[in-house]
Amino acid sequence: MTTTAVPVTADDVRDAAVRLEGIAHRTPVVRSRTLDDVARRAVFLKCENLQRVGAFKFRGAYNAVSRLSVDQLASGIVAFSSGNHGQAVALAARELGTQAVVVMPEDVPSSKADAVAGYGAEIVTYDRYTGDRAGIAARLAEERGMALVPPYDHPHVIAGQGTAALELLEEVPDLDALVVPVGGGGLIAGCATIGAAVRPDLCVVGVEPEAGDDTKRSLAAGERVRIPVPRTIADGQAVEVPGELTFSIVRRLVRGIALVSDAEIVDAMRFAFDRLKLVVEPSGASSLAAVLTGRVDEVAPGARRVGVILSGGNVDSERFVALVSRTG
Amino acid sequence: MTTTAVPVTADDVRDAAVRLEGIAHRTPVVRSRTLDDVARRAVFLKCENLQRVGAFKFRGAYNAVSRLSVDQLASGIVAFSSGNHGQAVALAARELGTQAVVVMPEDVPSSKADAVAGYGAEIVTYDRYTGDRAGIAARLAEERGMALVPPYDHPHVIAGQGTAALELLEEVPDLDALVVPVGGGGLIAGCATIGAAVRPDLCVVGVEPEAGDDTKRSLAAGERVRIPVPRTIADGQAVEVPGELTFSIVRRLVRGIALVSDAEIVDAMRFAFDRLKLVVEPSGASSLAAVLTGRVDEVAPGARRVGVILSGGNVDSERFVALVSRTG
Repeated sequence: MTTTAVPVTADDVRDAAVRLEGIAHRTPVVRSRTLDDVARRAVFLKCENLQRVGAFKFRGAYNAVSRLSVDQLASGIVAFSSGNHGQAVALAARELGTQAVVVMPEDVPSSKADAVAGYGAEIVTYDRYTGDRAGIAARLAEERGMALVPPYDHPHVIAGQGTAALELLEEVPDLDALVVPVGGGGLIAGCATIGAAVRPDLCVVGVEPEAGDDTKRSLAAGERVRIPVPRTIADGQAVEVPGELTFSIVRRLVRGIALVSDAEIVDAMRFAFDRLKLVVEPSGASSLAAVLTGRVDEVAPGARRVGVILSGGNVDSERFVALVSRTG
Repeated sequence: MTTTAVPVTADDVRDAAVRLEGIAHRTPVVRSRTLDDVARRAVFLKCENLQRVGAFKFRGAYNAVSRLSVDQLASGIVAFSSGNHGQAVALAARELGTQAVVVMPEDVPSSKADAVAGYGAEIVTYDRYTGDRAGIAARLAEERGMALVPPYDHPHVIAGQGTAALELLEEVPDLDALVVPVGGGGLIAGCATIGAAVRPDLCVVGVEPEAGDDTKRSLAAGERVRIPVPRTIADGQAVEVPGELTFSIVRRLVRGIALVSDAEIVDAMRFAFDRLKLVVEPSGASSLAAVLTGRVDEVAPGARRVGVILSGGNVDSERFVALVSRTG
């Protein structure tokens, strides 16, 4: 699997939706009057925390793996991931009858590592603050003749992630804005691609944790900017630099980035639990935090009908308790 | 508002659905492959924890209050409730422009009391183990000339609750069984009424906590049996005797009752959090517990496609933590 310069099109997203039909969940769009009151607008929550493997990542991983040749599938696949993409690739591999090796940071939440192992994948660990996960994965791919499934910077991955926004816009066509967590940019790139096609006026807003604002800095600089490894509770957004392909799309189609603090993310997780009855992991709650704090107005002023992607729910009850009690 | 002997019909449920359209949420039906694997059948979760006020109770309360006369609405309404019905009546009162008084046990979870007060209702408390809540509410109604909205034993309340099953069966018409938490019996009576009409072969299974098995005992005795006030974590199911009207329906249309322990309920709450990413309160998780433990087979052997009503999510994060860590 090689990354090409061919841009991702809305038809690529629609094609991914066909491949995912009956395999990925069509996740529900949840409403809450309490949330609407607090946010002072109509909010439509696309619940990717209820997706298979507990995150949107399954969409892109399955789409990408499903496009491998029979020979490539016979040799197996490699992925590097802070967690959810690893689970997604492991499950996609199992479903498509191939073997996965997942390169993960050694401090990844145990629930994520357990899930990857549970899907039958092999785990190789590295140090998040010193290791070069992409290099390790590339070496493994070469040594074992396996195909590499990158977490975000690939057209098939991006197209798969975009199906989340496609489903949301099918259900709620008249959104003013769409608020999307940004890590490497795969989700927002896919969502912005389909959004621009079916709802040209849609204002796509990215959300990053304050400590991991590589995409915001990159947009300001007009080129990809690398930051030190972010230290944030939002482990899915602890990315140093935007993807090459994803940034080329984000730059073109995303209106801007709102930043939220770790404390605001925890508040959003608590709000989701107490008022929405939904379990959302830190990265997945960053979009909700931007709406609850009103930060979304910095990018999309006056947006009345706002879609919010809750991108994942993989926080186990022990970590949830630790996070919520630390800043409660 | 008086309780009549007129039975509840499927058309009453359909009429309630029309009244609730655009007011109550049409809650999502959630799937999980992990759950299907554990339960060894296809499970369809009707997420009433995502309903307004966090529980199915809003359906029945709104339907009942919406049918009051202008004069009755002008005088206000009274409700007695272990929690969720109180919130539901308080919100229905606010939406319909009337004043509510809610009689609640003094040990009710603070999140529930706060929510009732937040909707602008007055709260009157009593001792769960010694007080006569029905008597207190009846006296208040008489003194203040207010209409009483009972929590379950009323045709309009039952018809409203049945809309949960109506929606589920519209989305998944070919269910073999429907598993429903049983407290006073309003939810299961309404669900069984519409179920018998649109899916005559549907096996309706009630679930009670072991300590609160008044309906199971009543079915065995062929008449309503009163038990001591149950001491269970499932506060919404801490009922001493089935309702008169609800039991007449349950007796006719419900196949049987499965019992689950408090520990099994906590396990189900933990499973819902960790694997389904859903917050479910103890009473609401009893139905899931019956499926996870296989107890549902005692009543519906061989059921392959099973609807499960997750009836509520009103457990705040502190109580959730206390419950999950106590028996983890």
